[in-house]
Amino acid sequence: MNAPLPVHLLPDIHQRETPAALLDALKARFAERCSTALVVREQHGRDESSFAAPPPAAVLFAESTQDVADAVKLASHYNVPVIAFGVGTSLEGHLLAVQGGISIDVSRMNRVLSINADDLTVTVQAGVTRKQLNEEVKSTGLFFPIDPGADATLGGMSATRASGTNAVRYGTMRENVLALQVVTASGDIIRTGTRAKKSSAGYDLTRLMVGSEGTLGVITEVTVKLYPLPEAISAAICSFPSIEAAVRTTIEVIQLGVPIARVELIDHNTVRMVNAHSKLGLREEPLLLMEFHGSPSSVKEQAELVQEIASGHGGNAFEWASTPEERTRLWTARHNAYFAAIQSRPGCRAISTDTCVPISRLADCLLESVAEADASGIPYFLVGHVGDGNFHFGYLIDPDNPEERAVAEALNHTLVSRALRLEGTCTGEHGVGLHKMDFLVSETGDGAVEMMRTIKRALDPKNIMNPGKIFTL
Amino acid sequence: MNAPLPVHLLPDIHQRETPAALLDALKARFAERCSTALVVREQHGRDESSFAAPPPAAVLFAESTQDVADAVKLASHYNVPVIAFGVGTSLEGHLLAVQGGISIDVSRMNRVLSINADDLTVTVQAGVTRKQLNEEVKSTGLFFPIDPGADATLGGMSATRASGTNAVRYGTMRENVLALQVVTASGDIIRTGTRAKKSSAGYDLTRLMVGSEGTLGVITEVTVKLYPLPEAISAAICSFPSIEAAVRTTIEVIQLGVPIARVELIDHNTVRMVNAHSKLGLREEPLLLMEFHGSPSSVKEQAELVQEIASGHGGNAFEWASTPEERTRLWTARHNAYFAAIQSRPGCRAISTDTCVPISRLADCLLESVAEADASGIPYFLVGHVGDGNFHFGYLIDPDNPEERAVAEALNHTLVSRALRLEGTCTGEHGVGLHKMDFLVSETGDGAVEMMRTIKRALDPKNIMNPGKIFTL
Repeated sequence: MNAPLPVHLLPDIHQRETPAALLDALKARFAERCSTALVVREQHGRDESSFAAPPPAAVLFAESTQDVADAVKLASHYNVPVIAFGVGTSLEGHLLAVQGGISIDVSRMNRVLSINADDLTVTVQAGVTRKQLNEEVKSTGLFFPIDPGADATLGGMSATRASGTNAVRYGTMRENVLALQVVTASGDIIRTGTRAKKSSAGYDLTRLMVGSEGTLGVITEVTVKLYPLPEAISAAICSFPSIEAAVRTTIEVIQLGVPIARVELIDHNTVRMVNAHSKLGLREEPLLLMEFHGSPSSVKEQAELVQEIASGHGGNAFEWASTPEERTRLWTARHNAYFAAIQSRPGCRAISTDTCVPISRLADCLLESVAEADASGIPYFLVGHVGDGNFHFGYLIDPDNPEERAVAEALNHTLVSRALRLEGTCTGEHGVGLHKMDFLVSETGDGAVEMMRTIKRALDPKNIMNPGKIFTL
Repeated sequence: MNAPLPVHLLPDIHQRETPAALLDALKARFAERCSTALVVREQHGRDESSFAAPPPAAVLFAESTQDVADAVKLASHYNVPVIAFGVGTSLEGHLLAVQGGISIDVSRMNRVLSINADDLTVTVQAGVTRKQLNEEVKSTGLFFPIDPGADATLGGMSATRASGTNAVRYGTMRENVLALQVVTASGDIIRTGTRAKKSSAGYDLTRLMVGSEGTLGVITEVTVKLYPLPEAISAAICSFPSIEAAVRTTIEVIQLGVPIARVELIDHNTVRMVNAHSKLGLREEPLLLMEFHGSPSSVKEQAELVQEIASGHGGNAFEWASTPEERTRLWTARHNAYFAAIQSRPGCRAISTDTCVPISRLADCLLESVAEADASGIPYFLVGHVGDGNFHFGYLIDPDNPEERAVAEALNHTLVSRALRLEGTCTGEHGVGLHKMDFLVSETGDGAVEMMRTIKRALDPKNIMNPGKIFTL
């Protein structure tokens, strides 16, 4: 595989020393659970982003919150960065040791701690993945809807404020995390929130931590909402003569308040890649992949209404997938779109965009960007959680070709500027990480970013919690 | 009216000086919009809580964000507290000038700035009230559901993370505020969030401000979600042989995932008070007041299911209110329960409780507390947003009788301890204010409160933003 872009090309990144005394102390405390083997460090020093940095100096495999607290206390003592690591699915460079330091791998903290089916809540350790969680709660008749595609950990999903295909109906991690256990920058263990559905008890530390990308603390336990499995579920595919027709259909569905559970756009390029990768025979036209949840009559009502709207925009007859197997096949294909795209151009890296705009601006934002991407000649995939106004281009570049990277970055820049002009955000669900720091300033203004910095400095005075991400200090 | 409890009985409260130079500067800048008349100051120095403090030194009637910013800059220069004031409906002493300072009245900032019906969002100045908002968006076919009873301002509702009767379906201010404009402690104007439905762009400053009770900044503009008016709405009353039967019905409804829009408990005492106050002839038994939103068939489906569950617990036949007039009469009666109760004992003050517990714990939490309240001999009202696990006792005390106050405070203390033991919160929607500081520590632990203090100190180093609330510094 070709090399991703070295992070030294990013601004204000510098490696900090990891003293041998810290490594000795970690080995003394954690024995073989502290690894300095290059292969282990390299595995923890990269993610799905298009950047590269030197690997962390050590990897610590935590098995308990106390392990995390002890590791952070030691790191704090020696002024060394810590980076929490779940399963490495970040797209924005969150896991890269851009200022050196140690990686704390929480993937062994994978116990579901308590299922409170009567309250529709569950508490898990941070290393539990979303698929594992759904497996473990299956017998209760409940499920956890947040679905960013990758089988990410609940800790990582909290840290990036993840969402995905079901967010249009069930919300994002912002709406679904009730409580957290967090190890602070000083190595103290705190709890935020309770299992009550709502609360006005002081500052909303839960939501301050959700989306803080590991820069304010390490999330070690997560309490989230569960939902009763819908009595009826139906998935449908509808092809459209143009992206615009699919988008206009989506806008109308949302504006009418249809409680659709999923509505995903896949453009014709990407359908082709998905067909090749997942051995499907989908019509190679822009399509919407939809899902309806509810009682049998409500699902029928929703589907009929959406079908009517789609017809009005030239959509073809729905193809239905009502059995769990058919639905799983379709959604697996959707979730594999990223890998299907990567495989369509051997050796490429994807520069992913993540803009999200108010629903009425979706067509304006998307269609101009498609025209620009087509004109650029760079191959790309395009998928979107369009019901939320969120979509992703993935520009498939040869990472050894600086011109292609420059073109892709320019496309992204134009797209983000357009989204911000349309009152949207540079990142709907991936986070800022390394890649969107400048965009964050454009989006929220210097004042808001300065407030973020002030909070960061106050809660992490030594700047050891995943430094170099979200903003420069 | 008898006097509420002087706040000097609360811990760590002290008056700070307001220099004449500040008052001169405010008069120079704001002329007659800065008032030092005693009657105006007294009106801004109290709320619906059972506490009293000396009034603020001056009241500033802001007409723009710039007014607020200029006032805060002056106050900051002179180290003088500022307290934002909407319409004065706080129940927890948020508006009391316990450390002196000036009140910034934002009620003249009452313009709806932009209705984006196509995006289901609206942006308003902080002084717009929820009823005014619903009046102004009526023609769009959309509505704003958050309904704390009082006709509070959107600024105040944001600052206390308010919710109310519709929260069981539509969420609280936490879920419904998309973006804010805020004047910081240094008098700078910042924006948080965008109109996009979701975002992962940095720290969630919006939700840090929501519920911060004026201690981190003054909210001057609020962007919230709107919802399509349901095609069909039905309200129903169902009486039950016992509070337990009503509560068990509610628990089952929620656990089954019925998307009920409102489910309010009113106990038999309170029904009697409401009948007397609102000239209604409701059966003087515990009752649930419910509302169903959706398509005609979905409303029917929900109502039938709930009716079946209620029958299983001995609930009487539903009485329906399907016309808007009947519904308004019922909900007005519900919202007047507080005033009906106050009037039932001339000269009394209400000590309000606000616990919220996970739904499966609701019966345990509520029934023991009812038994204790009955045994105390203190008259009380009991209403609850029971679908969220949130309910309010109002102990109706003679404020000149210290023994009654002590008994009421003891009842509240026992209730909060019970709610915390059951993994709930001391405040579901009213906020901490002056009254629940100790409970906040019991609920979240010293570590989390210390994190709140650290944020407060960093963002408001002079401690001028509504000091003395939420926690002691």
